Amino acid sequence: MTSTDPTDYGFKKEVPDGDSLERHVCTDCGWVHYENPKVVVGSVVTHEDRFLLCKRAIHPRKGYWTLPAGYMEQKETTEEGARREAYEEANADIRILDLLGIYNVTHISQVQIMYRAVLDRPEFSAGEESLEVALFSWDEIPWDELAFPTVYWALHHFRDVRDQDRFVPFGNAEGELLKTSFEIMKR
Amino acid sequence: MTSTDPTDYGFKKEVPDGDSLERHVCTDCGWVHYENPKVVVGSVVTHEDRFLLCKRAIHPRKGYWTLPAGYMEQKETTEEGARREAYEEANADIRILDLLGIYNVTHISQVQIMYRAVLDRPEFSAGEESLEVALFSWDEIPWDELAFPTVYWALHHFRDVRDQDRFVPFGNAEGELLKTSFEIMKR
Repeated sequence: MTSTDPTDYGFKKEVPDGDSLERHVCTDCGWVHYENPKVVVGSVVTHEDRFLLCKRAIHPRKGYWTLPAGYMEQKETTEEGARREAYEEANADIRILDLLGIYNVTHISQVQIMYRAVLDRPEFSAGEESLEVALFSWDEIPWDELAFPTVYWALHHFRDVRDQDRFVPFGNAEGELLKTSFEIMKR
Repeated sequence: MTSTDPTDYGFKKEVPDGDSLERHVCTDCGWVHYENPKVVVGSVVTHEDRFLLCKRAIHPRKGYWTLPAGYMEQKETTEEGARREAYEEANADIRILDLLGIYNVTHISQVQIMYRAVLDRPEFSAGEESLEVALFSWDEIPWDELAFPTVYWALHHFRDVRDQDRFVPFGNAEGELLKTSFEIMKR
């Protein structure tokens, strides 16, 4: 089995001793599977005026373009995680500059921590999780083929502060930016 | 059993199919226990010139003073989590202002997301996880009885920007602040 749904295994939902919320508990051994939000770390990576994007080789949204980003692993910092993801997905050695934003994707319990980063030399190639990796100018970005709304948000938030050395990081997109991102994802 | 260590149950370490890292896998049913860093959400809460601190009623660091903060739960935003923790630990209805900092505590795989927040009315009391809750002026803060280095960092980072409406959030403490925080924790 490759499912990550506990109910596909020997788990039932109950409130463990000393807890206040229902959790998945193994009916055999009593192991409590605590689920907490997962951190996604990634970055808007630029080389000169172009943006590094990866075409996803894996589900969900296989074939769509995304930023180098993925689940943070144990014992690394958020910045280390963002650099590792760029290595894994794009064989790219990036330099993290600063925090761009924190996006809360509550329906899938994700906290996405996104940085601004630079690719000093235009050296990259598709990692195992990418079909293709490329640098796009702003106008060349395949806007109708982006994988997730937060990719759209991060690119636009990046553009809003592109000439600023110091800025307050963004939260979830609002207004027109939010609306447009969801319209694009529905196409 | 109440342990959260998978090796106390029927788990062994192995690399699952399609993965690159070793994970805890149940020897009975094949359930893969993916461990990812946990998000702690909290805030430096002030009422006028005083800081809201909670004396911990639970381990670790029982009896020491901390900020209202704790593990983020599923389906909430980081801001909602920080407000919930203030309710649970201090029966305090706080108003989140802005992001103070992101601290990476890699040896325990925690990402701590800390906000600035205000307690509009000085109404609070000890929640189940607190022995005592109180407002302290800066000079009254029990510096030698703080629970964690990040509590020390967050209070000092707050003070650095107390008169600023917009600022770049902090990362881990460096230099003297880092050194002093660990010296205090050893006492």
